[in-house]
Amino acid sequence: MNPLFAGLGTTIFETMSARARASGAINLGQGFPDGRGPEDVLAEAARALLEDSNQYPPMAGMPALREAVAAHYRVHQGLDLDAREVIVTSGATEALAAAIFALVTPGDEVVMFQPLYDAYLPLVQRAGGVARLVRLEPPEWRVTAQALAAVASERTRLVILNSPLNPTGTMIGTDELALIADFCTSHDAIAICDEVWEHVVFDGARHQSLMALPGMRERTVKIGSAGKIFSLTGWKVGWMCATPAISSVLAKAHQFLTFTTPPNLQAAAAYGLGKDVASFDTMRAGYQRSRDRLAAGLRGLGYTVLPSAATYFLNIDLAASGIAMDDVAFAQWLLDEAGVATIPVSAFYAQDAVTSVVRLCFAKQDATLDAALERMATRP
Amino acid sequence: MNPLFAGLGTTIFETMSARARASGAINLGQGFPDGRGPEDVLAEAARALLEDSNQYPPMAGMPALREAVAAHYRVHQGLDLDAREVIVTSGATEALAAAIFALVTPGDEVVMFQPLYDAYLPLVQRAGGVARLVRLEPPEWRVTAQALAAVASERTRLVILNSPLNPTGTMIGTDELALIADFCTSHDAIAICDEVWEHVVFDGARHQSLMALPGMRERTVKIGSAGKIFSLTGWKVGWMCATPAISSVLAKAHQFLTFTTPPNLQAAAAYGLGKDVASFDTMRAGYQRSRDRLAAGLRGLGYTVLPSAATYFLNIDLAASGIAMDDVAFAQWLLDEAGVATIPVSAFYAQDAVTSVVRLCFAKQDATLDAALERMATRP
Ligand SMILES: CSCCC(=O)C(=O)O
Ligand SMILES: CSCCC(=O)C(=O)O
Repeated sequence: MNPLFAGLGTTIFETMSARARASGAINLGQGFPDGRGPEDVLAEAARALLEDSNQYPPMAGMPALREAVAAHYRVHQGLDLDAREVIVTSGATEALAAAIFALVTPGDEVVMFQPLYDAYLPLVQRAGGVARLVRLEPPEWRVTAQALAAVASERTRLVILNSPLNPTGTMIGTDELALIADFCTSHDAIAICDEVWEHVVFDGARHQSLMALPGMRERTVKIGSAGKIFSLTGWKVGWMCATPAISSVLAKAHQFLTFTTPPNLQAAAAYGLGKDVASFDTMRAGYQRSRDRLAAGLRGLGYTVLPSAATYFLNIDLAASGIAMDDVAFAQWLLDEAGVATIPVSAFYAQDAVTSVVRLCFAKQDATLDAALERMATRP
Repeated sequence: MNPLFAGLGTTIFETMSARARASGAINLGQGFPDGRGPEDVLAEAARALLEDSNQYPPMAGMPALREAVAAHYRVHQGLDLDAREVIVTSGATEALAAAIFALVTPGDEVVMFQPLYDAYLPLVQRAGGVARLVRLEPPEWRVTAQALAAVASERTRLVILNSPLNPTGTMIGTDELALIADFCTSHDAIAICDEVWEHVVFDGARHQSLMALPGMRERTVKIGSAGKIFSLTGWKVGWMCATPAISSVLAKAHQFLTFTTPPNLQAAAAYGLGKDVASFDTMRAGYQRSRDRLAAGLRGLGYTVLPSAATYFLNIDLAASGIAMDDVAFAQWLLDEAGVATIPVSAFYAQDAVTSVVRLCFAKQDATLDAALERMATRP
């Protein structure tokens, strides 16, 4: 058996959800909304399931979805993508795996930022890559030129960037993006950009893709997720976009990881991506209201809440909240004593963990948030 | 970029389907039925889509499906599996990828049989494994003790077996299974058994899993596919079954390849697996009629058809049919001149290819088969 996988634990999101199910806790851990998702998108999925073919669609994705992704990014982000540059995957996780297995040659150095989504490091290592980790710190979680310089080498081949950033709820700033673009072009590195939170941005801000920066169009793999965009996280419809020289290689990895993705869900994602801009604003406004509701409630209970500019998440700073526990102990206390599941942010670090921050998912109905706040009224 | 993937072609199935779409050929290449699939299974998928949660199900699969798979194999194959030994995947391709990445340590030797499904070799190589290929030949495609002995070594760790075997349409015999079991136990090797065709067996035969042989229960990964069982190949719902010591490691790879699989399709697969034994007999009888229809038609046109005991496929022996072309040339001729897409069997060989056999998919409606036969009336 492979020692890497044999030695690995179960992902923290699954672990906390399982504990929440077992104990009846309110689950503000794993990032998923508890609503139904958009009725019209669901209806289109049902229609395609019953009326259209359920046999293998084309390996790279249904033309309608590839075109919808390209058009969507044209309208929403000003990117000039061709449908042939879009490869549909069975969720963003598969896109990450395909991109990493396709782009890493054993010995390649891969720059990643901590806190990091827990799939990145094992995938890079299993692909034979050597991780070079940049550590980001609260409350600003900023990328600096010095930190990048410290991980650069002759063998740098890839950068993996998640923006908006889970778990911090921050968006990488324009200045930081410029630093990273400069780093990629000067090291001739490809960037894998996990942008699954691109639509979940608040306070009038707009997502900026690294792909849009000078010199990056030809060296960026942009990853997106219909599950995240339409609040249907179980659908597992994602995609990766890149210039043909790269996407043709990504497709080769994809064809042997899952080969294809259910056609009716692809049809529904294509339909949803074509909806008017206002419907995405409405979705954002809904999450923003939820963010504000949970943040205000937590502040009312004496918690110090870090700013959340994007994603389904906000974070509590434990020390500033006067809690003398580390994040794992506090998350355990919340689960056992208050009946609320959360995610300790140290789970996103492979080394030198930040241990003073706990993440909560606010993409929930008001009643769920209010019930969680009521339970959290008792503090340790 | 990884040289293995950068140097790879597109899978032959996708290539032939794309050519068939482009030229309007009748597609007897890629293995998929052209019917709608079972209405009750479709209806359950639609019901679950509209009524149940579309958020992340548990990473290892929904309890209902894990239980249904275990129960199904108890009823149909006499296996004694626990639901916890079943990991749901996004299709059998993902199960293969997860099993290979989880079980191969770089340098491990992996025994495989040619003709081999085209995902096996690149996945094994990308995982760092060293392929040891056993070559099977028409018309019997038999595994012999000598052939196994010739590929054995101190570093043998895995055997990958596909039975019933695609593209040959044969079932591995009881004596061959015993040889392979003996090989695995004496080399302390794990067997990955791709059994996606387990239900598509004819003439009253029953599938026999390598897992059922003495000594194999604890060293077999059994892979199955709802898409193949229910003729809904686009659904991409599969699973891998193994003793907890192995399945726990498989789950670690799965969680970073796709993480999970759409819950409504899992619910429908669970429903379908629980249907009565007679409904599976009816399905088999339908495919058997189609096999006989195509085989009789081809024989009427002077083709020599190799016996097909299982799968969606039958094969034409070119030399015996008096066709002085190799398989690639004949498949090309059929596509260009007759307007029928097929698969040249040499595509299933990495070396020393058998070049005298062409595969046709008979899992089609009568009208499709008849139209293809009409087109094939002109011979080269
Ligand atoms: C694949 S489960 C993780 C979901 C998620 O993005 C998160 O909770 O961070
Ligand atoms: C994943 S496409 C291949 C389908 C199939 O099993 C075949 O045609 O052999």
